[in-house]
Amino acid sequence: MIGLADVEAATRRIDGRVRRTPVAPVGGADLGLAGPAWLKLEHLQHTGSFKARGAFNRVLAAAETGGLGAGVVTASGGNAGLAVAYAAGTLGVPAEVYVPLTAPAHKVTKLKALGAEVRQVGDEYAEANEAALARAAQTGALFCHAYDQPEICAGQGTVALEMLDQIDGLDTVILAVGGGGLLAGVAAALAGRARVVGVEPETIPTLHAALRAGHPVDVDVSGVAADSLGARRVGEIAYRVAVDTEVRSVLVADGDIVEARRLMWERFRLVVEHAAAAAVAAAVTGAYRPEPGERVGILLCGANTDPTDLAH
Amino acid sequence: MIGLADVEAATRRIDGRVRRTPVAPVGGADLGLAGPAWLKLEHLQHTGSFKARGAFNRVLAAAETGGLGAGVVTASGGNAGLAVAYAAGTLGVPAEVYVPLTAPAHKVTKLKALGAEVRQVGDEYAEANEAALARAAQTGALFCHAYDQPEICAGQGTVALEMLDQIDGLDTVILAVGGGGLLAGVAAALAGRARVVGVEPETIPTLHAALRAGHPVDVDVSGVAADSLGARRVGEIAYRVAVDTEVRSVLVADGDIVEARRLMWERFRLVVEHAAAAAVAAAVTGAYRPEPGERVGILLCGANTDPTDLAH
Ligand SMILES: Cc1ncc(COP(=O)(O)O)c(C=O)c1O
Ligand SMILES: Cc1ncc(COP(=O)(O)O)c(C=O)c1O
Repeated sequence: MIGLADVEAATRRIDGRVRRTPVAPVGGADLGLAGPAWLKLEHLQHTGSFKARGAFNRVLAAAETGGLGAGVVTASGGNAGLAVAYAAGTLGVPAEVYVPLTAPAHKVTKLKALGAEVRQVGDEYAEANEAALARAAQTGALFCHAYDQPEICAGQGTVALEMLDQIDGLDTVILAVGGGGLLAGVAAALAGRARVVGVEPETIPTLHAALRAGHPVDVDVSGVAADSLGARRVGEIAYRVAVDTEVRSVLVADGDIVEARRLMWERFRLVVEHAAAAAVAAAVTGAYRPEPGERVGILLCGANTDPTDLAH
Repeated sequence: MIGLADVEAATRRIDGRVRRTPVAPVGGADLGLAGPAWLKLEHLQHTGSFKARGAFNRVLAAAETGGLGAGVVTASGGNAGLAVAYAAGTLGVPAEVYVPLTAPAHKVTKLKALGAEVRQVGDEYAEANEAALARAAQTGALFCHAYDQPEICAGQGTVALEMLDQIDGLDTVILAVGGGGLLAGVAAALAGRARVVGVEPETIPTLHAALRAGHPVDVDVSGVAADSLGARRVGEIAYRVAVDTEVRSVLVADGDIVEARRLMWERFRLVVEHAAAAAVAAAVTGAYRPEPGERVGILLCGANTDPTDLAH
């Protein structure tokens, strides 16, 4: 488990390393809401997602205890991998990133541009992950999980303390859930101060299924947001925090995610990836329906997306 | 001429009609600057540019004196036209927008979607403009110029008062100049409080040429930003304000504009149009070089652009 103190420590640790991303106040009407709403533009973060927060927190926490001699290792060609590569590169720490042989070339190129050594192993992430773990065990490098480590979760939670500061009377934060690192950090940071709504595609309901089963369970993974929300099961930390802080879990359809992403561009000229659009979709469709006057913050978590389909 | 009082009146008049757009603090290093910088995300404004400010101010000012009985008329298939159509539509006032027969279909479609009557006349904007003026004279409709009217300029200037409020110790605002309505409003609002740098493509130096000649002169129009910065000469109001407030005029090359637009996407996940990128390019290239410690706000003025070329 993690708590507010961990998130506060993370805030101090990563200060100056991550961007304090701005918040855009919007007429709720633009989102079909009765009350006011705020968009947290966290997709403007370094490497295009909140993941830089957790990565810096994990790497810097290890540095404090002298645990970085052998560098860092992770398994992700997505936003988590980019964030670890960026954090390590900024801090002058060697990084190895394991991805499957099937990883798209442009992802590999980006990781290399950030200074990481990219190792392509196996046909699936499970295999790349095994290899990364083995490598960390062998070399003593710091393994960075995409979501289920306390420092990762606490780092992600720092975005919620910014939102509390930026949005007067914040009642509710709506955010997307993959493995749940973001959810865990945000819910731990806000516990008792604001409600957290975790949004998942119907096609990847990891948190939803876990809450129903009473423990994390595997789910099938598919759909438009699988690229970043495609964890097979929610993390243990996220599950515990979600239960303890009474997180609300809602699901949205892929079609609504696609439409919400387009709405972000058409109404606000914001380009976001499908994960971020999932949070928007929860508001637009009424999957989560705020009370009259409820002050809602919607976390735009990432923008690592191809904007081609947003052409007029 | 216009002054601060006009901009303050505009702020009161359009309050609640336009978005208070957020400001993103950025490490100047990300832009090649020594000191801190702030990006004013005005491209998130209604209809994707600051033009909504001037449009609302002109239409609402006319409403105060009962001058809207015959609706509004303008000549622009670009951001000014969109803004007038949007303001009129929101206020329930009929709008006619004149564009040449050569206007792209997607622009006409957008104007119609905002509720405007679109009239296609002639092969060039000069002809569409003539027709719009004739129509206004005939019907008594309120003619909205794209830049050279006091209410238009004063409305655009409201963005500068927001920046003063949002950026502690703001020293300098860098912005793009087309016909100069934005420049006039911003410089009038800031006079004596912050420096204004007006940026133009080398291919459309309307302000630059006017300052050199000692009065507005026609220039040739071409290049990547011609779509929104393509006025043939700077407005009389802008010229006077620029001289009186000692605006700095700098030029940037088209290649640098293109690169700055790409940098906004790669480093910040912001999609902006070339006009906005011109202001960024002035900082990145050193066309404007701030003093050490100078606190610079860069105005991202619009995002009515096709993001297709930003794909990885
Ligand atoms: C943009 C974006 N949003 C949301 C998530 C989900 O985060 P978590 O796995 O911490 O739930 C991810 C994970 O990669 C992401 O990249
Ligand atoms: C996005 C954008 N930026 C800048 C300008 C230039 O504005 P002005 O003509 O007031 O100088 C325009 C004008 O259309 C615009 O649309």
